[in-house]
Amino acid sequence: MKTERKILLTQSQDHAGLIAQVTHICFKHGLNIIKNDEFVDREHHQFFMRTELEGVFDDTTLLEALTQALPSNTAHRLSTATRKRLVLMVTKEPHCLGELLMKSQYGSLNADIVGVIGNHNDLEELTQKFNVPFHCISHNGLSREEQEKDIQDIISGYNPDYVILAKYMRILTPSFVEQYSNRIINIHHSFLPAFIGAKPYHQAYARGVKIIGATAHFVSNDLDEGPIITQDVTHVDHRYTADQMAQAGRQVEESVLYHAVQQVTNEKVFVYGNRTVVFD
Amino acid sequence: MKTERKILLTQSQDHAGLIAQVTHICFKHGLNIIKNDEFVDREHHQFFMRTELEGVFDDTTLLEALTQALPSNTAHRLSTATRKRLVLMVTKEPHCLGELLMKSQYGSLNADIVGVIGNHNDLEELTQKFNVPFHCISHNGLSREEQEKDIQDIISGYNPDYVILAKYMRILTPSFVEQYSNRIINIHHSFLPAFIGAKPYHQAYARGVKIIGATAHFVSNDLDEGPIITQDVTHVDHRYTADQMAQAGRQVEESVLYHAVQQVTNEKVFVYGNRTVVFD
Amino acid sequence: MKTERKILLTQSQDHAGLIAQVTHICFKHGLNIIKNDEFVDREHHQFFMRTELEGVFDDTTLLEALTQALPSNTAHRLSTATRKRLVLMVTKEPHCLGELLMKSQYGSLNADIVGVIGNHNDLEELTQKFNVPFHCISHNGLSREEQEKDIQDIISGYNPDYVILAKYMRILTPSFVEQYSNRIINIHHSFLPAFIGAKPYHQAYARGVKIIGATAHFVSNDLDEGPIITQDVTHVDHRYTADQMAQAGRQVEESVLYHAVQQVTNEKVFVYGNRTVVFD
Amino acid sequence: MKTERKILLTQSQDHAGLIAQVTHICFKHGLNIIKNDEFVDREHHQFFMRTELEGVFDDTTLLEALTQALPSNTAHRLSTATRKRLVLMVTKEPHCLGELLMKSQYGSLNADIVGVIGNHNDLEELTQKFNVPFHCISHNGLSREEQEKDIQDIISGYNPDYVILAKYMRILTPSFVEQYSNRIINIHHSFLPAFIGAKPYHQAYARGVKIIGATAHFVSNDLDEGPIITQDVTHVDHRYTADQMAQAGRQVEESVLYHAVQQVTNEKVFVYGNRTVVFD
Repeated sequence: MKTERKILLTQSQDHAGLIAQVTHICFKHGLNIIKNDEFVDREHHQFFMRTELEGVFDDTTLLEALTQALPSNTAHRLSTATRKRLVLMVTKEPHCLGELLMKSQYGSLNADIVGVIGNHNDLEELTQKFNVPFHCISHNGLSREEQEKDIQDIISGYNPDYVILAKYMRILTPSFVEQYSNRIINIHHSFLPAFIGAKPYHQAYARGVKIIGATAHFVSNDLDEGPIITQDVTHVDHRYTADQMAQAGRQVEESVLYHAVQQVTNEKVFVYGNRTVVFD
Repeated sequence: MKTERKILLTQSQDHAGLIAQVTHICFKHGLNIIKNDEFVDREHHQFFMRTELEGVFDDTTLLEALTQALPSNTAHRLSTATRKRLVLMVTKEPHCLGELLMKSQYGSLNADIVGVIGNHNDLEELTQKFNVPFHCISHNGLSREEQEKDIQDIISGYNPDYVILAKYMRILTPSFVEQYSNRIINIHHSFLPAFIGAKPYHQAYARGVKIIGATAHFVSNDLDEGPIITQDVTHVDHRYTADQMAQAGRQVEESVLYHAVQQVTNEKVFVYGNRTVVFD
Repeated sequence: MKTERKILLTQSQDHAGLIAQVTHICFKHGLNIIKNDEFVDREHHQFFMRTELEGVFDDTTLLEALTQALPSNTAHRLSTATRKRLVLMVTKEPHCLGELLMKSQYGSLNADIVGVIGNHNDLEELTQKFNVPFHCISHNGLSREEQEKDIQDIISGYNPDYVILAKYMRILTPSFVEQYSNRIINIHHSFLPAFIGAKPYHQAYARGVKIIGATAHFVSNDLDEGPIITQDVTHVDHRYTADQMAQAGRQVEESVLYHAVQQVTNEKVFVYGNRTVVFD
Repeated sequence: MKTERKILLTQSQDHAGLIAQVTHICFKHGLNIIKNDEFVDREHHQFFMRTELEGVFDDTTLLEALTQALPSNTAHRLSTATRKRLVLMVTKEPHCLGELLMKSQYGSLNADIVGVIGNHNDLEELTQKFNVPFHCISHNGLSREEQEKDIQDIISGYNPDYVILAKYMRILTPSFVEQYSNRIINIHHSFLPAFIGAKPYHQAYARGVKIIGATAHFVSNDLDEGPIITQDVTHVDHRYTADQMAQAGRQVEESVLYHAVQQVTNEKVFVYGNRTVVFD
């Protein structure tokens, strides 16, 4: 009987007494609460709680007790603190891939990058430095469906917790996205005002912006961008060329994506509708 | 029977089941939990919880129930969401006073400045613009004890929740500080513990720093600086003279003090030993 | 013959030798260069230089010498370091007005607010605290042209250097804007992604953004937003209601507008096309 | 005769006409000024100028002309835009080494890491992933002088422009430091001058700080810490353990060191006394 640490995630329609019930059941099962984060979205009547527990776990009994005691619309998930498994998808830009590889193997990212898929082979060498398998699935000569089928086969082989689009520059089809609901994370250059379309940094330069930003979000089909996890910006000025703005942007992109992946793999993020709750 | 919103603050030595017990008692008294923040300092075995409640309150009954159910070393406080009362102490610099007056009367500071005490009269005009009484208690011709006695008499008349040292440039005696334990908030130029003593911005300039900071903290006698509430910095460079560094510093000072006062008056801050828990 | 400090602003099509020529002429006129900022936009072949000079000035002779020596497409302006004159236009929100009044009279803003015009009278009391005249020009019962005519008459009476839209919530006509080319500064809520239209903070809340931003810019008719001077953001999270996002936004707005006005009144900003050069 | 881009660095006691003289000589030699940054330290009467030039260079003639025309206390340096050579010194922590290797080979760092020296061999594997030679010079069984002699022999073999202490945890002797005056860059945990000594993050934790910072500086013997190049901070709160503060600190350390190395290798940094001028 080993003392372990696990995270209990509770999501429910809101009603009175939820915190008391859940924490009481944990107490009765001999589990200590290390940290408890709770949030109620009063507008949408949604309840979210993240409970870090320590003790000797009997997962089945605990989850059954919770299911019996709590309303039927409550979802529970008990997550062990093991390292998550990530598959990365890339094109040609190395900055996000490099940051995640480094932080996974030499830093504090609580996840293993188990495989990398590129639609070009530019990043094979960088990936292999870290002893991670690289798969080149070119979109040349294949229909979008065929290429995605090949990608899905590779992803399935790795059974990852999340798929990270680390500057993957192709649009994914709705059916692909549906396979991994709220499990695909993308990094998006976003600015003030937002520049959608080609060459965003050239647009930002032409507009004379003083800030460059990036957004990490889950990929969804319902809305154009999906639920936002993290955003940040960096300051630029008139001396930046469009290329230097892009370079500053890459620095924000890699940092924002790293933080988003860290939050998600540490079980700090709930998704509902087009929004997230991030217990930072 | 009116529906109200109050904040329950619980501080205790840590032991199992605390969250469940407190939230259960709130539930039994028909109170809804709007927001619950909880933290356990595992090193010092201290438990902190801030619970925003909504419902019809019977304060006495609720506090009695909590006292009976919980260990004897647990402290409870039930705070109504009314505006707090502040007395400010100032010398000659207007920036912190001006920021707090403006945010109190035209912004989102949840507190009234009921009186201002200066050891000079430079800031009388600014204070009176906002229809707040100003009291000049010069230290000239008085012993430190006599001056502080006069100040205490004025403070007592206002019965404030907190005393804010908004760039009050005199050291307070231990006996004065003891009168208002964890209720005096100070703003400190530059960093803690760096650059103690006279002309801190000239020291910072001479050292060639690239960052200027400010610290808001409770005033205590036990340690040299007291528990830190908020800190922030701004970037400077070689082009700043010592005076321009001081000017940049004032901007950080007023912003950091405002945020600290906002957190304290919104009942988001616990103090224990020389540390704070700030449920931001 | 008094030693003074003035700022020489030079804007020109770029060609070789410009810095040498301008600085040589200053030297020959016995003027010391305290600080010299220079920028060449290589893409648009534009040259910008800001030269802080100290010495005994003969303005006419100096400007004539510069005009003769330099190409005909060069614009020079010699600015004395006197305080600039500002007229503010407001509606109902006090935060930007309050910040500028406080920083003008008690802080480091190098400008006087000589008058305030509101289309409502909500901010009359705040304005008059600072002994600044307030003019209420309601848009009720007047055509847009009639109301703007009244506003222009008041502005003309003050002969201001700049007109600051400190949360003035009406659209100005092109003919009004043309009267004050590159002399009207506006503060705009802008986000990631940008939310144009009504209730921007409610849009931002619905989108689940993690950042709230603001943009200070010159008002122009050529493009929808005009040349950007300053931008900044603040972080928000899932716990913010739409109203709390608006409150966080107001904090950024007042800070960004203050910095933009400070830069403009200190003669640090050049405008060309839809872009600015800001020698910070 | 090839068009090149070079950087002219001028440092001098201040006197009138310096900008005009230098820029005129550049003009006469057919060189175009792309960008010119200038600063006068009025307190210490020091003049600094960084001039980016484009054209066909005759270095000897240009430098002779400058030397003849300008006062004898003026120092000139003409730097080509080639990539700088760096030797890194490390102990056991990988974060700064990893960041610099990645940014050098896959990012925008304008420098090659030509060799890495460790007093332990923990980082050999990471270094060799990037095909950079690693030298382990243990301090065991050697006097400080003997170990430093071995290190100097290796450094000499690489003829580097700068030596980067990327979390090298040993104190260097004055005679070592003198060999590389203003050419050794160190990253310092926490603030300067706060928290000197062992376990700085545990000191910071015990003090209850709300900010963690890092400082990149040149190593000198004259003063305790040497001229500061870059500083930055990150926010922490009560939930951080000492270990988590250290982790947050490492993130700032790698970012601050990267930016300092980027500024130095792009010839943007002047040193004088215990201060720097950084033309950012």
